[in-house]
Amino acid sequence: MNSIENTARLLIICPDKPGIISMVSTFLYRYGANITDFDQHATDPEGGTFFMRLEFQTGGLTCSVEQLREHFLAEVAGPYKMEWRLTLASEKKRMAIMVSKHDHALMELLWRTMRGDLAATIPMVISNHDDLRPEVERFGISWHHIPVTPDTKEAAEQQALELLDGKVDVIVLARYMQILSPKFVAEHPNRIINIHHSFLPAFIGANPYQQAWERGVKLIGATSHYVTDELDQGPIIEQNVQRVTHRHSAAELRALGQDVERSVLLRAVRWHLEDRVIVDGNKTVVFIK
Amino acid sequence: MNSIENTARLLIICPDKPGIISMVSTFLYRYGANITDFDQHATDPEGGTFFMRLEFQTGGLTCSVEQLREHFLAEVAGPYKMEWRLTLASEKKRMAIMVSKHDHALMELLWRTMRGDLAATIPMVISNHDDLRPEVERFGISWHHIPVTPDTKEAAEQQALELLDGKVDVIVLARYMQILSPKFVAEHPNRIINIHHSFLPAFIGANPYQQAWERGVKLIGATSHYVTDELDQGPIIEQNVQRVTHRHSAAELRALGQDVERSVLLRAVRWHLEDRVIVDGNKTVVFIK
Amino acid sequence: MNSIENTARLLIICPDKPGIISMVSTFLYRYGANITDFDQHATDPEGGTFFMRLEFQTGGLTCSVEQLREHFLAEVAGPYKMEWRLTLASEKKRMAIMVSKHDHALMELLWRTMRGDLAATIPMVISNHDDLRPEVERFGISWHHIPVTPDTKEAAEQQALELLDGKVDVIVLARYMQILSPKFVAEHPNRIINIHHSFLPAFIGANPYQQAWERGVKLIGATSHYVTDELDQGPIIEQNVQRVTHRHSAAELRALGQDVERSVLLRAVRWHLEDRVIVDGNKTVVFIK
Amino acid sequence: MNSIENTARLLIICPDKPGIISMVSTFLYRYGANITDFDQHATDPEGGTFFMRLEFQTGGLTCSVEQLREHFLAEVAGPYKMEWRLTLASEKKRMAIMVSKHDHALMELLWRTMRGDLAATIPMVISNHDDLRPEVERFGISWHHIPVTPDTKEAAEQQALELLDGKVDVIVLARYMQILSPKFVAEHPNRIINIHHSFLPAFIGANPYQQAWERGVKLIGATSHYVTDELDQGPIIEQNVQRVTHRHSAAELRALGQDVERSVLLRAVRWHLEDRVIVDGNKTVVFIK
Repeated sequence: MNSIENTARLLIICPDKPGIISMVSTFLYRYGANITDFDQHATDPEGGTFFMRLEFQTGGLTCSVEQLREHFLAEVAGPYKMEWRLTLASEKKRMAIMVSKHDHALMELLWRTMRGDLAATIPMVISNHDDLRPEVERFGISWHHIPVTPDTKEAAEQQALELLDGKVDVIVLARYMQILSPKFVAEHPNRIINIHHSFLPAFIGANPYQQAWERGVKLIGATSHYVTDELDQGPIIEQNVQRVTHRHSAAELRALGQDVERSVLLRAVRWHLEDRVIVDGNKTVVFIK
Repeated sequence: MNSIENTARLLIICPDKPGIISMVSTFLYRYGANITDFDQHATDPEGGTFFMRLEFQTGGLTCSVEQLREHFLAEVAGPYKMEWRLTLASEKKRMAIMVSKHDHALMELLWRTMRGDLAATIPMVISNHDDLRPEVERFGISWHHIPVTPDTKEAAEQQALELLDGKVDVIVLARYMQILSPKFVAEHPNRIINIHHSFLPAFIGANPYQQAWERGVKLIGATSHYVTDELDQGPIIEQNVQRVTHRHSAAELRALGQDVERSVLLRAVRWHLEDRVIVDGNKTVVFIK
Repeated sequence: MNSIENTARLLIICPDKPGIISMVSTFLYRYGANITDFDQHATDPEGGTFFMRLEFQTGGLTCSVEQLREHFLAEVAGPYKMEWRLTLASEKKRMAIMVSKHDHALMELLWRTMRGDLAATIPMVISNHDDLRPEVERFGISWHHIPVTPDTKEAAEQQALELLDGKVDVIVLARYMQILSPKFVAEHPNRIINIHHSFLPAFIGANPYQQAWERGVKLIGATSHYVTDELDQGPIIEQNVQRVTHRHSAAELRALGQDVERSVLLRAVRWHLEDRVIVDGNKTVVFIK
Repeated sequence: MNSIENTARLLIICPDKPGIISMVSTFLYRYGANITDFDQHATDPEGGTFFMRLEFQTGGLTCSVEQLREHFLAEVAGPYKMEWRLTLASEKKRMAIMVSKHDHALMELLWRTMRGDLAATIPMVISNHDDLRPEVERFGISWHHIPVTPDTKEAAEQQALELLDGKVDVIVLARYMQILSPKFVAEHPNRIINIHHSFLPAFIGANPYQQAWERGVKLIGATSHYVTDELDQGPIIEQNVQRVTHRHSAAELRALGQDVERSVLLRAVRWHLEDRVIVDGNKTVVFIK
């Protein structure tokens, strides 16, 4: 039977050319890996980029996982000029959460992780306010209050970077209302996931629900994306919308939107944790069920 | 029983103050009108604007509809400073359609109208190309080909205005790829309905599917709105979205989007024809079931 | 401004006849009530049943709310043979929750209520298992473990009824896996809200996700309804669905379905608490925004 | 570039065992086939059934497609005990449509096919009523009126079978209101696609919208499935739903439902035509984008 203990994932990006699927699947077969999920995408049938995600069972491997990595590098990834990674489902990713005052997205992530719904550990939660400390500490999770003012912003970021250094695999901004500097982002490329409270690229920047209300849209949305240097412009992982009417005030849009935010962020984080998301320039390839 | 023949609709906009519902409903009761649908909206509980839509049955009226209009003006609308209109469901609106080369939205409107699904007559279809003539004439509908070039744009608009003058109650732009001048719009205020092929305000202007593909959004959309002087900025009547993935090319977004466009435009047109849409500045109040 | 403190709700059911709206709205106007929301429904234009829900502001009332009730009974409800109730938004309903072992629906209700998202108090949670006690007591809510076996079922129900007696306005079965007896239901008519984990009337009874998986449906759903004597046959308040594919196992349907269950139950409970649901035989009239 | 002319599809069902992906992809690579789409599904990681769908480009084949079929049978399909088919996107399937009096689903299929949106030819439309003849003949499609009465049902079916014999690859029941006999079904196994106007398995049989209205559901639906001997029990290809309220009459459910029916049937037919649907007992595996 498939089991978390025996499940490995292989992600590949490389220049597209014929024979890659044959090469990779034959390699895995030779070493006793049983492929149980397979997905691929080519940006263009000729001369494009090729993306692949496989899940396989390690129970019948004829070598160790570490040896498999070495063989793969030598026999396949090297010759085919692949970017790749091979991860084990049993090795949970370490997820730091950054938050300001809104609790809805944070609570969803904490609650899901605690009950085993999300395959992660949470080494720390960092906030520029101290309001949500009791909620977080109740789960036995380490809380760090790092206030941010215009004057202290650089030092505050530095403090956060030091806390995070070497301790996390992914950083989730669960309604963290500070803009991260390019330096911060550069230290965690394609590893910072944000939830923006609008259907991007509509309503970039501050107060998107107020903007949405003023424009009179009939659907509000939320967008989860990787953070890049440009505000709200990073690769989109997931989006969703919710129907609204003329009867809803801006405050009601905000309340309704929170439910969309938390479910959109949850899916994006889950897919990232399961190695289902590959960044392709300013877009994502998302291999979902 | 309710019947189209006996159904009237009363739409009201006025400064909000206590007693309006009492006043209007009592007026109708006194003259034998049987209210069968009632909807209202106040932008603010005090000092805002009040919107009301009633449907009532005229079978038991103690006067003619024309007399009822006169009484209403004298007894209610005048004293309360109301903008209002009283329409009969049996009097179908005259709907002109303007189109360029894409047939999907046009065909939906023609087909729905012909089979009695939309309460409208179609006095004419106007196009800047002649491609869809056979499709339209097959339905026995008058077709007008008015080519538009940068040089002839003003004259072409004038020709269209003359054709439309006094003949239509609403103009639907079913993927008409020309921008109408402020002069044209001013002649038909809040009576021109457009379908824009994006989830506005994202991707204003040309080629929204290409823009959407380049941004890597996970949902594409369509927006139906009244046309104003500002491009793609008019009051939104209806919007919807469709899920897409990294596998879809820009051309596939375009094909998928056509289905959203036609269903969104259909709903917007239907609601307009049933007097369910009231423009409130740059927004709409839409009283739907 | 509208405020919870000043908001009252009037719900009415009566035989339909002309003039009801005029009568009720004029009555309220006379006593200084300012109507801020108004909804109505007639099952048939002639000879049917009439349902009405009004929200009004009590700030300008010329009498007390209690006196208004007396006047309404004497002047309107009596003569028109109305079933009716007048509630105050400021008087939170007392909501008991019954649960077995699944925590997702329970946690959503607790969390929403604690942060003020649901206008209720929770006097007690009752369960036939003791597993979720710590989760509930952490919120400072009273926990009652009443085990149920085939032999003790009648006594257990009696014990629950006594606990509930006079203490609650509504009972929510947040995945309570016991069937309540007709006697229990009769003590709380139209006041017990259940969440069933299928799109009723498909997959009535036990193990609906397994049933759904075996049938190969492409959407799974959840249904919230009032409990009646017939299993899963009570008036439906709200339903929703979630897309699934051949790749999902029955266990995965169960996990995905939990999100639908909790959001569907949340909406149904919210609408009940806001006096938006009226039972009409085996159906509901739901007056939502 | 990918092109319809060069696109082939390989569908495979076989007992699952390690090495299939390697075997098949290596086979294709050896003969110069360039895989551009790949999807697989295993019902169980061990001892289950394995399903695979590949798209590949034939431009670089080192043999003819016919020879490729022979090689595949000898080298792969035979040894691995595969059920399989290799189709060409350029060879449009022949689709017969059977219909009674409702035109909405029929018109969608005709319109889509005529404008090249569906890769099919339509050799004939068969109906037990003569009402829709002009609509169909206007498209230049052959119309066959075969009346059905209880007495003539067997003869009528025989007449239809003779018309269809050898002329069609798939039969679409676009609201054909007669139940087909087991004999008829047996002649076209897994090749008859029906649209049922409910969210199956809710509301099996006649008049589902009336049933839905009486039950007071908050969503209505439609289901497209392959026809088997058991009424409305065949493998489901696609389903969708539409939100409704207490305000909708049974007739309005019917009208709203028609839009769901036509879009659900369209998707099911499109997927069948593109060889995306594989029947797995009483379920389907649907490999969609």
